[in-house]
Amino acid sequence: MIKEGDLVVIWIDSRRIYLVKVDPQKRFSSDKGYVDMSNLIGKEYGERISLSTGREAFVLKPTPFDIYRGLKRPTQVLYPKDVAYILYMIGAKPGSTVVEAGTGSGFLTISMAYFLGESSKIITYDVRDDTQRSAKKNADFLGLADRIIFKLGDVREKIEETDIDAVFFDMPDPWNAVKSAYDSLSPSGSLVIFVPTIIQVEKTFMSMRDLFVDVHAEELMSREYQLKENAVRPKSIGVWHTGYIIYGRKSLKGD
Amino acid sequence: MIKEGDLVVIWIDSRRIYLVKVDPQKRFSSDKGYVDMSNLIGKEYGERISLSTGREAFVLKPTPFDIYRGLKRPTQVLYPKDVAYILYMIGAKPGSTVVEAGTGSGFLTISMAYFLGESSKIITYDVRDDTQRSAKKNADFLGLADRIIFKLGDVREKIEETDIDAVFFDMPDPWNAVKSAYDSLSPSGSLVIFVPTIIQVEKTFMSMRDLFVDVHAEELMSREYQLKENAVRPKSIGVWHTGYIIYGRKSLKGD
Amino acid sequence: MIKEGDLVVIWIDSRRIYLVKVDPQKRFSSDKGYVDMSNLIGKEYGERISLSTGREAFVLKPTPFDIYRGLKRPTQVLYPKDVAYILYMIGAKPGSTVVEAGTGSGFLTISMAYFLGESSKIITYDVRDDTQRSAKKNADFLGLADRIIFKLGDVREKIEETDIDAVFFDMPDPWNAVKSAYDSLSPSGSLVIFVPTIIQVEKTFMSMRDLFVDVHAEELMSREYQLKENAVRPKSIGVWHTGYIIYGRKSLKGD
Amino acid sequence: MIKEGDLVVIWIDSRRIYLVKVDPQKRFSSDKGYVDMSNLIGKEYGERISLSTGREAFVLKPTPFDIYRGLKRPTQVLYPKDVAYILYMIGAKPGSTVVEAGTGSGFLTISMAYFLGESSKIITYDVRDDTQRSAKKNADFLGLADRIIFKLGDVREKIEETDIDAVFFDMPDPWNAVKSAYDSLSPSGSLVIFVPTIIQVEKTFMSMRDLFVDVHAEELMSREYQLKENAVRPKSIGVWHTGYIIYGRKSLKGD
Repeated sequence: MIKEGDLVVIWIDSRRIYLVKVDPQKRFSSDKGYVDMSNLIGKEYGERISLSTGREAFVLKPTPFDIYRGLKRPTQVLYPKDVAYILYMIGAKPGSTVVEAGTGSGFLTISMAYFLGESSKIITYDVRDDTQRSAKKNADFLGLADRIIFKLGDVREKIEETDIDAVFFDMPDPWNAVKSAYDSLSPSGSLVIFVPTIIQVEKTFMSMRDLFVDVHAEELMSREYQLKENAVRPKSIGVWHTGYIIYGRKSLKGD
Repeated sequence: MIKEGDLVVIWIDSRRIYLVKVDPQKRFSSDKGYVDMSNLIGKEYGERISLSTGREAFVLKPTPFDIYRGLKRPTQVLYPKDVAYILYMIGAKPGSTVVEAGTGSGFLTISMAYFLGESSKIITYDVRDDTQRSAKKNADFLGLADRIIFKLGDVREKIEETDIDAVFFDMPDPWNAVKSAYDSLSPSGSLVIFVPTIIQVEKTFMSMRDLFVDVHAEELMSREYQLKENAVRPKSIGVWHTGYIIYGRKSLKGD
Repeated sequence: MIKEGDLVVIWIDSRRIYLVKVDPQKRFSSDKGYVDMSNLIGKEYGERISLSTGREAFVLKPTPFDIYRGLKRPTQVLYPKDVAYILYMIGAKPGSTVVEAGTGSGFLTISMAYFLGESSKIITYDVRDDTQRSAKKNADFLGLADRIIFKLGDVREKIEETDIDAVFFDMPDPWNAVKSAYDSLSPSGSLVIFVPTIIQVEKTFMSMRDLFVDVHAEELMSREYQLKENAVRPKSIGVWHTGYIIYGRKSLKGD
Repeated sequence: MIKEGDLVVIWIDSRRIYLVKVDPQKRFSSDKGYVDMSNLIGKEYGERISLSTGREAFVLKPTPFDIYRGLKRPTQVLYPKDVAYILYMIGAKPGSTVVEAGTGSGFLTISMAYFLGESSKIITYDVRDDTQRSAKKNADFLGLADRIIFKLGDVREKIEETDIDAVFFDMPDPWNAVKSAYDSLSPSGSLVIFVPTIIQVEKTFMSMRDLFVDVHAEELMSREYQLKENAVRPKSIGVWHTGYIIYGRKSLKGD
């Protein structure tokens, strides 16, 4: 049963998916009509509702996809396909401790907090205060802020934590922070880095190869399909490029 | 410190990555040389070791990638890129209850057990006893079997559990099991399905569209890169096709 | 030297490329300014010109790409990547005779006329008179109409010509015309077919496999790159799907 | 009717496609059986023949694809998808004059000779004598050598011809030859360059941008399909990378 303060998704169609917090004093509005939120209280998830225009909508429980769609984004955001694979590569599980930089819009931070659960510790660094405050607001809205430690700081200089299970970088010059990651990671810990250009891939690889083993790089592409009877086929236009993911594990080679 | 009974990875190069259980009575052998496992005890993760031939190797802590590489596989196995995205789409977090069919080699089952942690419940159905026994062996080897319930049964007839958070199907005719998934899921719960051909995508979509909302389909491709100074570029040959992922959420439309 | 009646390209930037016929009485206009065409006469190809706004532009000799960009299109048009590969697969050279159906916007027809030269014969069928008249207008504008025979007719019933070097189909149900193609082709002649969905690929293949050898199917994707100093990378958004190309050669199996 | 001295293709299956010159004194042999070539004389193209083992084969007229498959290759060879698009971009038609460097295995040279016909002139430069002799042998075998001028020379220093319609480069450092191409091309003429890495794309672009307009870059990917009843789908493994194609047209900017 939906109650006051719950986060819900109002799903109208595949391009109109809204993440809202149920406030009985407020009205949800869209170009397809509005609904007073007080009407949502007591409904079951999955139920059909009617907007003011008569248009049907559904009230759903938020998933990571909805979080992606519902995020306030001051800067660009990683795509779900990349976040999913990064989470997999990081290999973090409930109880893990992960360091990330930069925070950016906080989408990966929040996704980690969502998937790793309450017993984990996520530390996210950024050099910009405004970005980080906005990311924190997103985490607060989603009720995940207490699993995240926001730190203003430059990982190229130092990562304060040690014995970390995994480190993730999404920053313009990750090669300048690879040594910090090495010092912060527990032996055999994973370093995962996301960059948008091949030249960055090369520089990052060069900075990792003497400290890490199992270094490899991949690019993920997602092709979306049009679902229609007798006409299932890839959508004509779509995203062709986001970035490259580089992976390695701390060795004790250099020690 | 590595001790008897630990699962470790012996990493020789990017094509020689072995998942082994440390048994001081046993010897690890490869085409690049051997090492008596008693020598591993007391080493730290990330440390360099020497094989009998003088060849260097590293002893690492197993990650989901290593599980993928180390699995015994009687049947084909989902690729990490697909497993990662399926886990993301399922949206399961510590404490969730997930139903899966068929078990297959158990790679997704085991990956869920790894990522969802001890507080979760994973129920995996298969119609074949031999497949399931082999999957269970894999889970035992990895120390994850106690988080998984293996069930011999046909989900096209019935899923016994109800109020499930998410259902995943990897089977030849998922459209015959969509109604079972609907009955088993809690409202707004996620159904994720993997199929290798477009005709199956169409049939699956047709069976879902009256019961589920937010139905969409995607295909993920991974392009691997050669990491070499001044010659970073995509590898010439690679995997071009695994399958399509279909997603939807249970609505109460039909009720 | 450019003279009256010449076809020229006015190139302003990568999104403003115009194919025009030089008429000294007329003015070329764009959102970036205009130029009286009388000013183009006597210029050399490749020369810089100034639009009324001071904006620079270049006057170029038309290439097949410019034809693609400059075509009037009542219906959808094949992409250059597909046209290029189809021309290659057809294997037609100066002097060849090729049959095509449907004419559509005439882009492939015109491309064949351009590449095959004056000594070739291109016969293009369509069931719709209006489409074909519009295609003929395009061919006239480009000075290529005399190399093309436009025929109103249904190739599913009959192709009148025999001993043809190659046949190309771009139509909704090519499998219904495969027998006509077989009867029209010279032995070992090529049949090339373009379709947008996998179900059409399957039906087409089934209709070809007893009459043709070397039957195979491919899909071409083009990924465009952003060219910018220190930021060369794939463009974020692009075309992910046009269609599939099926190829086979007439055997005398069935005779 | 096939006669002595004809080039024919013996097609056994999709992986056994042989380009041979009919010599009644010789025998064609494969792992699936042999046939005395005297038996081919008088056969029609497209006819079925029997190998010594009883295995059926077809005798076909060579297409550009067969030339690709049948070429002797001392070095790596461009793929048909790239050759097709390069030919399209070059925009050359019967009667055109094209300069190319390096000759390599001569596959593009030969493809141009095939498609452009007798009235065209193709000049191909290479710095290596052995490579070029081998390419010439290929052209001789295919009866296309008289359309090609083979030149030993370094295009980074000079291209002797002027007023050329198009120039194509497939060499490690094309940026060092861009000025030569500019001097050799007629105004508005096309320069097309193929390189395997992004760093080369960037360097090439930087060398072109002041001399050429309409500069752009693309990468073509071909996805092959398995053709099988009820199981049409992309082949699992395939070619993911060959190279990038850069295009531009000579402007008179700099003059």
